[in-house]
Amino acid sequence: MVGVMLLFIAAMMLLPLGVSLYYQDGDTLALVWSILITAAMGTGLMLLRRRGRDIGLREGFAVVTFAWASAALSGSLPFVISGAIPTFTDAFFESMSGFTTTGASILGPHNMIESLPHGILFWRSLTHWLGGMGIILLSLAVLPMLGVGGMQLFRAEMPGPTKDKLTPRLRDTAEILWLVYFGFTVLEILLLCIGGMSLFESACNTFGTMATGGFSTRSDSIGAYNSRYFEYVITVFMFLAGTNFALHYRFIHYRQPKRYIRNPEFRFYLMLVVIFTTLVIFYRLATNCGENFETCFRHVIFQVVSILTTTGFGSADWEAWGAFPQVIMVILMYIGGMAGSTGGGVKVIRIQILVAQARLELRRLIHPHAVIPLKIGQKLVDDGIVRNVMIFLLVFAAILVVSTSVLSLMGIDMVTAFGASIASLSNIGPGLGGVGASDNYGWLPSAAKWLLVWLMMLGRLEVFTVLVMFSRHFWRR
Amino acid sequence: MVGVMLLFIAAMMLLPLGVSLYYQDGDTLALVWSILITAAMGTGLMLLRRRGRDIGLREGFAVVTFAWASAALSGSLPFVISGAIPTFTDAFFESMSGFTTTGASILGPHNMIESLPHGILFWRSLTHWLGGMGIILLSLAVLPMLGVGGMQLFRAEMPGPTKDKLTPRLRDTAEILWLVYFGFTVLEILLLCIGGMSLFESACNTFGTMATGGFSTRSDSIGAYNSRYFEYVITVFMFLAGTNFALHYRFIHYRQPKRYIRNPEFRFYLMLVVIFTTLVIFYRLATNCGENFETCFRHVIFQVVSILTTTGFGSADWEAWGAFPQVIMVILMYIGGMAGSTGGGVKVIRIQILVAQARLELRRLIHPHAVIPLKIGQKLVDDGIVRNVMIFLLVFAAILVVSTSVLSLMGIDMVTAFGASIASLSNIGPGLGGVGASDNYGWLPSAAKWLLVWLMMLGRLEVFTVLVMFSRHFWRR
Repeated sequence: MVGVMLLFIAAMMLLPLGVSLYYQDGDTLALVWSILITAAMGTGLMLLRRRGRDIGLREGFAVVTFAWASAALSGSLPFVISGAIPTFTDAFFESMSGFTTTGASILGPHNMIESLPHGILFWRSLTHWLGGMGIILLSLAVLPMLGVGGMQLFRAEMPGPTKDKLTPRLRDTAEILWLVYFGFTVLEILLLCIGGMSLFESACNTFGTMATGGFSTRSDSIGAYNSRYFEYVITVFMFLAGTNFALHYRFIHYRQPKRYIRNPEFRFYLMLVVIFTTLVIFYRLATNCGENFETCFRHVIFQVVSILTTTGFGSADWEAWGAFPQVIMVILMYIGGMAGSTGGGVKVIRIQILVAQARLELRRLIHPHAVIPLKIGQKLVDDGIVRNVMIFLLVFAAILVVSTSVLSLMGIDMVTAFGASIASLSNIGPGLGGVGASDNYGWLPSAAKWLLVWLMMLGRLEVFTVLVMFSRHFWRR
Repeated sequence: MVGVMLLFIAAMMLLPLGVSLYYQDGDTLALVWSILITAAMGTGLMLLRRRGRDIGLREGFAVVTFAWASAALSGSLPFVISGAIPTFTDAFFESMSGFTTTGASILGPHNMIESLPHGILFWRSLTHWLGGMGIILLSLAVLPMLGVGGMQLFRAEMPGPTKDKLTPRLRDTAEILWLVYFGFTVLEILLLCIGGMSLFESACNTFGTMATGGFSTRSDSIGAYNSRYFEYVITVFMFLAGTNFALHYRFIHYRQPKRYIRNPEFRFYLMLVVIFTTLVIFYRLATNCGENFETCFRHVIFQVVSILTTTGFGSADWEAWGAFPQVIMVILMYIGGMAGSTGGGVKVIRIQILVAQARLELRRLIHPHAVIPLKIGQKLVDDGIVRNVMIFLLVFAAILVVSTSVLSLMGIDMVTAFGASIASLSNIGPGLGGVGASDNYGWLPSAAKWLLVWLMMLGRLEVFTVLVMFSRHFWRR
């Protein structure tokens, strides 16, 4: 399976090769070599396969983890071979950041990004888009089978008639969802081109948007264009990318906008955007931010949606907005997008279950003998799922704490250590302090980069998929 | 019930009155007035009572919350009337900080504490000791009846034969546990006096130790004495105060030291102290702290025990030790002491259940159809308790996040806002940043002080006891 995936990645590398041939800025040979090596690795793995072995739960976890690690490895080839990112640690960091749709970059300031060849830049953004495809498949089809991830809740009980269910076969599900993903991608590229962005930059920024990745072709991210139109268009598409793609599919299929509003997680997601945007706008206007209402609104909603969906694009330096917006952004970083979207974090549905459960627990204190079930919308939530959700939220937080302490051991200050941890684990990209919106990860020691690479993968694969392999029960018998 | 408590508090104010008469430094009249007003309030409440009304669950929650609020109110009288703390907000803050055994102080630097009259200082420390008495009663007898708190786990299934159970009647339980508390208090005062501390200071510091409070008679806390002996003695007693008092009782009753080691929560508590002390010592020695091993060991174990038990005494400025010890201290702040001790935080047992549950969840992923029960030591933990523990850990963290954002709205920087929130909610005292070990809470705006007062009460009463009154189900019917 990993072999097939590598062959697919090799085929996709033909796209940046095309870009490179068009622009002729010196990265063609590096891409050709990368394609050959990746294809060889893929073919090698396929020759290794043995027939007649069933894939069980254990193999499922291993395949998913190994797939992401291999993708990141092959993805780092063009960076290293072209010399764009000379050290392997940095190249692997950048590639893993791409495939996990994180968007944390080791590429420094001084327009280092702008000076890279077009083919390499295109590949960098394409890793996001490919990672996004992987995530949609993973969160809506693979992880529910493995019993991991926020979509379990909807596994057995999709709303509406049976016809409404996404077709249960993996291949069909994947095709339908990728069609939606592909459609949105084309639409956004078109809208950005209409606004006057070059096709190359439109494509790269769209990959970053739809995958909620965050790699841009400019050092100053989306702020570099200084364009109202681009900011609004990208805000809308980031919001769409942070939405469950199964919902998009159903909306397109039935053409009923209320399909969105009927979904309790979507209502909660929308409510989060509205409430946090309003709070930060009020705060900024009250503290005399010196912007008119439209500018303030545009910057704030861009940043709120960018962080909540874990995209990590920047249109303004929100770290300079003061303490309150900073705290709000940290909350958003933890939450993340909807389950079944390309967004990271702990996912909106888990926070929603937490809130419902906390209220239920208070009610149970007053009526200790009553049996009160937990409901999200019309759906009953099973006790096992509630327990799983809460342990996920706590383990996610515990990983942040452990990682913060390990980074601080390397002499990194507490705020930067925490910022880098949450930005990696939630797959956002820019963090706080020394790895904030206007900084990069290049200056960190190698050990820190490897820890963060690990966190990106852990967060992207819903933590337990990877952690389970460290359980002694995984290896027993 | 609150009336009886106020009369008891009035009676206890006779102690600082005695101190005041002995030292004759001008606070006698203020204490006399405070006693009269508190006694009058108590008598008034007792006259209000109506016979024949049963106390149900709802009334239980209300009585506990109202008791702490009234105690803090009466406790603030000596501060205000004597003029030692002229504003009501500050006096109430100091008093609530005392009765919740927090130890956060608005009393500033420049030896402001040393200049206070002896009677007032004695009262300030005595509020800790009285609060500690209240907590022991609350956590071992009252809260389990209300279905709140970490001791639920042990409610029905104390280990050993039936004779081993603490006697079930509230009055007897209280008397037995208070005897232990009183015994330890006398012992510590004696040991400090033997070391050359004055009886007055020995008593005040002992009250701060046994209640895991943290008010001291010196601006520089225990560091002011610059004494090895005092630091070791206080470290030992802080550790004992952070231990379940029911365990102490059983040890004293049966004289078997293995009673401690047999208890799984105690083993975990001891392990936390050993591991975190070792980690910080290694870090400090590796970063050339310039101290010899004994000094380093003494400072580190003092601080680790002081923060883990949520006492908050200081023997050195640990905020200057670097990023890693800071992160460790934040972890310890969240954890807190054992259930059934005078310590705050989320309690060791909850962290222990979290760790066990996280491991179990991994095992469940590999064996999705197996029914695997959760065990702590030999005890099966009921699913309802696991759910309750996890929701507690998450709500505790959520309150920290909300409180940090509200404080940051008042213009307080993020680190200070978080530090003040966790130091108040976990009932520690000193926090981080602007409210760190060598700072105080005096400079905060009034609104911030009231929020923190509220957090101290919330944390001390195990959160749900207070929150439940904000549920609409509490007021229905």
